[in-house]
Amino acid sequence: MAVYTDVTADDLNQFLAGYEIGALLSYKGIAEGVENSNFLVHTARGNFILTLYEKRVAEKDLPFFLALMEHLAARNITCPQPVKNREGGMLGRLAGRPAAIVTFLDGVWIRRASPVHCAAVGEALAKLHLAGRDFAMRRANALGLTSWRPLYEHAKARGDSVREGLGAEIARELEVLEKSWPRDLPQGVIHADLFPDNVFFLGDKLSGLIDFYFACIDTLAYDVAVCLNAWCFEADHSYNVTKGRALLNAYGRVRALSASECAALPILARGAAVRFLLTRLVDWLAVPDGALVRPKDPLEYYRKLRFHQSVKSAGDYGISA
Amino acid sequence: MAVYTDVTADDLNQFLAGYEIGALLSYKGIAEGVENSNFLVHTARGNFILTLYEKRVAEKDLPFFLALMEHLAARNITCPQPVKNREGGMLGRLAGRPAAIVTFLDGVWIRRASPVHCAAVGEALAKLHLAGRDFAMRRANALGLTSWRPLYEHAKARGDSVREGLGAEIARELEVLEKSWPRDLPQGVIHADLFPDNVFFLGDKLSGLIDFYFACIDTLAYDVAVCLNAWCFEADHSYNVTKGRALLNAYGRVRALSASECAALPILARGAAVRFLLTRLVDWLAVPDGALVRPKDPLEYYRKLRFHQSVKSAGDYGISA
Repeated sequence: MAVYTDVTADDLNQFLAGYEIGALLSYKGIAEGVENSNFLVHTARGNFILTLYEKRVAEKDLPFFLALMEHLAARNITCPQPVKNREGGMLGRLAGRPAAIVTFLDGVWIRRASPVHCAAVGEALAKLHLAGRDFAMRRANALGLTSWRPLYEHAKARGDSVREGLGAEIARELEVLEKSWPRDLPQGVIHADLFPDNVFFLGDKLSGLIDFYFACIDTLAYDVAVCLNAWCFEADHSYNVTKGRALLNAYGRVRALSASECAALPILARGAAVRFLLTRLVDWLAVPDGALVRPKDPLEYYRKLRFHQSVKSAGDYGISA
Repeated sequence: MAVYTDVTADDLNQFLAGYEIGALLSYKGIAEGVENSNFLVHTARGNFILTLYEKRVAEKDLPFFLALMEHLAARNITCPQPVKNREGGMLGRLAGRPAAIVTFLDGVWIRRASPVHCAAVGEALAKLHLAGRDFAMRRANALGLTSWRPLYEHAKARGDSVREGLGAEIARELEVLEKSWPRDLPQGVIHADLFPDNVFFLGDKLSGLIDFYFACIDTLAYDVAVCLNAWCFEADHSYNVTKGRALLNAYGRVRALSASECAALPILARGAAVRFLLTRLVDWLAVPDGALVRPKDPLEYYRKLRFHQSVKSAGDYGISA
């Protein structure tokens, strides 16, 4: 739940005067997103989302994110479109923070994904990868392979307070990943965080993708591996190969995975699990004892990692031979 | 910020099937309200508010609140109107909780009220009091005079951790209130919590009142005293007599305060300050050290109480002689 910064009606009215979206009728902080403050803004022209970028998003990256959303939307990827102000800019300042207005997308996010939803996500991810091919801007993955060891160093002293031996297990895994990480696979624009709460559906039909604030240039198949982690495990942390097959086959019908990409899936999936294990662990350890709000459980990703370590080949994920 | 209970799209779709408000297009948890979980629901028929009632609201009181909103809306008080389901009921169950859908009101709440806003609030409060006269249902004020001593008993042991001597000061004040509380003033439906975040404006025009979940039958002038506390102090806790005068005069033009009600304003205002001081103190003490979310500062109401103790007569609030 996230509204870190309150906005006064006077300040918002002044901000909106720079746009051609009509008079402010109401705005409400939304209890979604963990990085930024988001408001649903209702004006005479309809519904919009106002985002105030908080300190976890680097201001220098905002032009990349906003231009990417505009680029993708122009290529029929349904995602929020940044609304331009009267001067043609997409980024302003409000309440002392960088701020942007984007279009509102209908749709709901799915708490219990079915194989049908997983297939829709696979298809949308492949289309996103294709639509990103001619995007000219560059942004490195700030949470890619090279970031994991610093995160581990930050968390290792207290990692065992979460689970006995966790620090040593992550250390061993990092050595494997650093040695075996595939560096020659096709790269391009990846979403890097396409979790269920970032994918909207109307019925079984995917209606939009949101939250591009981890998007970057990285290995395309790594993005697939993130989705396997995010979409294809059950609540008991068991891997559901039916969902995996649905996601991978749907992806492959739009953008075929090469033999090298398929072969790399297990190690990419291990890396993706480590990435979320580490960031959740750091967040978990940052919260004082007894706090009312608990961050997401890091051990969910420890259990997923254990599954990926047991995988023999991409076939175990459900990929067609 | 409040979304205590998450709702799945499947559950919400099933719930909405009982209403005639069209297909679900989106829903988002709102970071507003501290008692319940609120969602902004967008359907083919427009925007609605879905409220899930959490444990701080007594289920037996819900028919009172919902019937009151319907009663007031029928008498031109702009407030959320409960939407009836296909069986004519206003209350259902969702995610294991009592739940209701109400109409969406445009408007924004004012972070920095001007005398113009205070006058609008005074007028709206008087109209609410008049519109409530023929409301047949009854609900005692669960946070009225008789509740304050139990709250004090609950908090007193640790009250001095917030401010040295606070417990003893509240004890002395309670004795005064219990002895001097006016018991013969006109009673009726009161809102009992008409704070700035419960009053919507479009420009300087009041566009709606929300959050009737403290409404009850109690002394009408006590509701005025709550508003003096909530609307007429500056950020430095000084009383702004211009705002007080605007609120009181506007109230009086719709419903004249009797001489007895005017004379009682200082003691009613002290009581109102104690009510919010006590509930904030209990909330404050309930939060573990180091928690990320801090409740509202109880000492704001200690300072307001000190002002009310210094008041000589209702004239000090700005009331016209």
